Amino acid sequence: MQAIHNIAEICAQHGITDVVLSPGSRCAPLTIAFARHPHITVRTVPDERAAAFIGLGLAQSQRRAVALVCTSGTAGLNYAPAVAEAFFQQIPLVIFTADRPPEWIDQLDGQTIRQTDLYGAHAKGTFTFPADTSHTDAKWHAARLVSEAINLAQQFPAGPVQVNVPLREPFYPKQGEEIRFEKVRIIREITGPPRLPGPEFVALRRTIRTTPRVLVVAGQHHPDTALLLALRQFQGAYQVPVVGDVIANLHQPVGANYDLRTAPISHQDVFLAVPEPGLKAALRPDLLITFGQSLISKALKLYLRESAPAEHWHIQAAGPVADTFKSLTRIIRLEPVDFFRQLVATDYSMFGGLVSAEDTAEAQGIAPDSVESPAATTAAGSIPSETTERLTWPKAGWALPEKDAAAKADFATPWRKADRWAKGFLTDFLAQHDQPFNEFTAFHHTLRHLTDGTALHLANSMAVRYANILGIPDTKSIEVFANRGTSGIDGCTSTAVGAALAQPERRVVLLTGDVAFFYDRNAFWQNYPTPNLRVVLFNNHGGGIFRLIDGPRQQPELAEFFETRQPLTAEHTARDFGLRYFTAANFAELKTALSVFFAPGSSAALLEITTDSATNAAFFEHYRATVRTSFS
Amino acid sequence: MQAIHNIAEICAQHGITDVVLSPGSRCAPLTIAFARHPHITVRTVPDERAAAFIGLGLAQSQRRAVALVCTSGTAGLNYAPAVAEAFFQQIPLVIFTADRPPEWIDQLDGQTIRQTDLYGAHAKGTFTFPADTSHTDAKWHAARLVSEAINLAQQFPAGPVQVNVPLREPFYPKQGEEIRFEKVRIIREITGPPRLPGPEFVALRRTIRTTPRVLVVAGQHHPDTALLLALRQFQGAYQVPVVGDVIANLHQPVGANYDLRTAPISHQDVFLAVPEPGLKAALRPDLLITFGQSLISKALKLYLRESAPAEHWHIQAAGPVADTFKSLTRIIRLEPVDFFRQLVATDYSMFGGLVSAEDTAEAQGIAPDSVESPAATTAAGSIPSETTERLTWPKAGWALPEKDAAAKADFATPWRKADRWAKGFLTDFLAQHDQPFNEFTAFHHTLRHLTDGTALHLANSMAVRYANILGIPDTKSIEVFANRGTSGIDGCTSTAVGAALAQPERRVVLLTGDVAFFYDRNAFWQNYPTPNLRVVLFNNHGGGIFRLIDGPRQQPELAEFFETRQPLTAEHTARDFGLRYFTAANFAELKTALSVFFAPGSSAALLEITTDSATNAAFFEHYRATVRTSFS
Repeated sequence: MQAIHNIAEICAQHGITDVVLSPGSRCAPLTIAFARHPHITVRTVPDERAAAFIGLGLAQSQRRAVALVCTSGTAGLNYAPAVAEAFFQQIPLVIFTADRPPEWIDQLDGQTIRQTDLYGAHAKGTFTFPADTSHTDAKWHAARLVSEAINLAQQFPAGPVQVNVPLREPFYPKQGEEIRFEKVRIIREITGPPRLPGPEFVALRRTIRTTPRVLVVAGQHHPDTALLLALRQFQGAYQVPVVGDVIANLHQPVGANYDLRTAPISHQDVFLAVPEPGLKAALRPDLLITFGQSLISKALKLYLRESAPAEHWHIQAAGPVADTFKSLTRIIRLEPVDFFRQLVATDYSMFGGLVSAEDTAEAQGIAPDSVESPAATTAAGSIPSETTERLTWPKAGWALPEKDAAAKADFATPWRKADRWAKGFLTDFLAQHDQPFNEFTAFHHTLRHLTDGTALHLANSMAVRYANILGIPDTKSIEVFANRGTSGIDGCTSTAVGAALAQPERRVVLLTGDVAFFYDRNAFWQNYPTPNLRVVLFNNHGGGIFRLIDGPRQQPELAEFFETRQPLTAEHTARDFGLRYFTAANFAELKTALSVFFAPGSSAALLEITTDSATNAAFFEHYRATVRTSFS
Repeated sequence: MQAIHNIAEICAQHGITDVVLSPGSRCAPLTIAFARHPHITVRTVPDERAAAFIGLGLAQSQRRAVALVCTSGTAGLNYAPAVAEAFFQQIPLVIFTADRPPEWIDQLDGQTIRQTDLYGAHAKGTFTFPADTSHTDAKWHAARLVSEAINLAQQFPAGPVQVNVPLREPFYPKQGEEIRFEKVRIIREITGPPRLPGPEFVALRRTIRTTPRVLVVAGQHHPDTALLLALRQFQGAYQVPVVGDVIANLHQPVGANYDLRTAPISHQDVFLAVPEPGLKAALRPDLLITFGQSLISKALKLYLRESAPAEHWHIQAAGPVADTFKSLTRIIRLEPVDFFRQLVATDYSMFGGLVSAEDTAEAQGIAPDSVESPAATTAAGSIPSETTERLTWPKAGWALPEKDAAAKADFATPWRKADRWAKGFLTDFLAQHDQPFNEFTAFHHTLRHLTDGTALHLANSMAVRYANILGIPDTKSIEVFANRGTSGIDGCTSTAVGAALAQPERRVVLLTGDVAFFYDRNAFWQNYPTPNLRVVLFNNHGGGIFRLIDGPRQQPELAEFFETRQPLTAEHTARDFGLRYFTAANFAELKTALSVFFAPGSSAALLEITTDSATNAAFFEHYRATVRTSFS
């Protein structure tokens, strides 16, 4: 049993601070070890599906691995949706599934399934803890594999790993018996970002400098100040437009000397819906540079697939890379932050001596004596940790040759103009259409009321789509999270609950639809208060998204089999779980509610905004028609 | 798209009548095909975890395959707990998971995971539908694999299969467009039970006849009148005690001339808890014969493992066999019904001419001229379909030699006496302890009020354990179901809902604890009425089982991490889902409620019986202590 208790100690030494477990008898030795470990916070959540997503939310917010513990049998299978989300969203989860020892598998004992490799293609790895740890080698194996599992979960790209733990009785210490944590050796893995050979990098930089139509598109990415600073320095120097959905988290206000040239393009869902061949032609990149994970904007994805850039480079330090736009030509194994920093860097030591300053300057067509090393430029390798760090644009050596600069400006201008037009269009459209109360307009009002410092969780799928159309206020620091690894509705609420538990001092807001909300109500079925959590539920009594898209809305099966009309309101759920409950079914009620809803309170709160599915669909169609005809 | 529409037609031709689907866009062609097929009933359930267990409940009740349909992404992973339960409970499910076509996997598109072989070791097979069915061979493949999948799901031992269906847009027919169902060829698989070579069977029969201490133990088995008749004929002829838990469904009243000698032993949880070495020695079998799946009774399992019979035969026509008692010596590939019928049969044609009547009689030590063929004996191979069929005991030729009969009676007597003692003990104990209201006594009263013809669903784990201790009234026809394939709490309610949908004319009663109940509340989150469903919820506000067992109850973590105290009552759940709501917190309230609760009504009803966990634990301890000291 000591080997089991050591699991908690090994996790703690690896920096794991939070464990989510679900009740069971087979897992009791793990439960007791984690519960009694002085440096680990343990929470118990009965529904394993919710438990795993709560763990995912904790890990996503804290940006470190979280451990899950469940009993044998189907308990671990209920983790599967969160495991897949963690796999594709690259979130480290270390999953301890208690099991019967191998000789008891398939012997008709209760709560016994085939737990080896339970998550198949959606775990980074699977480990089997030794059933018997009496032999010295088995002790070594037991401790070693826990280190290996945690290291694997955390290696980039991070993800879930399973450690299956066969356990024989007795499961419990004797009454009053203390358990102890041995000082146990762990294997620490230290890694640094990859570096390209200097000449390769210089060639890439030359291509970026000399290609007039360069576009950067950011996929889903956690908020990262260092990356944003590097990106904006890059943009300032190269005049390249950068496009990102809300989940790319480019909208953060960074630094004091905010420059319009470095404002991200974010209204692609609006302006790319305009059927203007001239606009589309003007926006077409020759070189597309991407980083991060998935995009929300279907319009952007389709546009980039059609536009077929001659070159598409994806920047990702390791792991599989998707050919999202059917145009991928080059995978660049760097951290995005390093890639963009190095493009504006004057400190050539980052190339590890492979390239002299003179070689590089020559490659750039710059006379060696004009190479400077501006003191204020962020040195590559050091990570700025403060959003208040002042930006300094690259000095003389960095000015693009006039011809290149002019060509780049010619390309950036239509992107910036289109984005500005879309922003203005939305403002006018919403000002004109403030009266008809529907999901679209209610969503807009809700977004405007978000407070600075909010962690915003957007449920699949309409919530994240509305937010991407309407945009996040860029004057407030709002970090956006969404389960876009698999885009499931199955754990959006639990993930937000996990986030609220992870950062109790921070406001966590979940915007969700009714299907995702009721699906995952068991997120609240646990005993840990989240007074910082605010849930805004847009209840249209069904999967309203199906009424908005062509195809299902023309079918006789729409209401029953696609929308799946459902009559619930959240009132009873709110009562069951002690959520302060607000409702709004018109603008007056919504304004009243929003004026107090996001204020600090003693307990979590839920605002249910009721709209009519048919009205929503009609308004959305009106919005789409107006976009198509309004471009100027 | 025609190949997709044909899936519905193929399912219908294979006799599938019920499909449970969950909403989604990717699966729309399947949804539309099934929804429009004239011979298929389609129901939609938003939470895929509940949907799959509802499908399992339908299949379990109807004793035929049910199809499930879900969209791409984690939808299919939410099926995983029900898939594992179906695998171990041998219930045929044909699971159609809509998917993106293979070239789009891992390309960061939404709701896209790695769906091939999604259920790993818990599916009988996995099939990949062709992404493109334009080629003639692809059409042939498409239709053929659906037949293969359905046949595989239904082959004994039945179980779940996955058909992954990659789908390209467009997903929807044009507005008003009709779809048609082609007359499509299917492959029907016809199978009959295996037959042993005659001499082998004769040898087995001789062993049973001449071994004094033969015990039959039945594992979980669906109610099967033909099997019960065969078993009781066998018992009448051989004087062998037959033991079964409530989930073995041996307690059905069968036939008119009920004979005490053929009453199943069912109180093993009570009398095997008595620490009487003399009793244990008297009960020890030399030859153990088993059939069916798992046992509930831990006391019986432990006893049989300790008693180590010299021979253990398990009767199962095909599939893996567990060595549950560490004593298995022979796997007999017959249907249990055929095995027991043949043991009393006089029609030797079942041996396919391999054994003559004379050979057999000789093997039995019976003079050939005494072999008779009693007209009233059920002929092997014909399945009696009526419970009213009269039993006729085997005639002269079947009388055991006097010595064998006496030896067998010597062994059967202590089993029958122990069972009678346990029944009497419970009656006395409950009569004495009628007053302290707790889970044990409330459960007893509830069981006594069950009506004839009920399909009784017992949730894991305390409900099924209480029922096994207390016993099901054997004067009423009550069929017992429990998810003992994996013994999970995750789908007990949904399974009962599926059963209620399957047999609307029949009373379906679910007895459940609060953790299983709230875990699976989404069972009710669908729009199909189940007026025949009655849920009795024993709410002790936590996993009360942990307070009953040694180990957890001695730990400081008991309340938070094992019991997982939870404050919910079902009142709001009942209101949300339109369940008529009854409560009872004492005997007077319980009696009032039970007097009307099981009566037919216009809608489903829920009776919440509130007890105190500590009181329950104290009473259960009192019960256990009394059992241990009362045996006489």
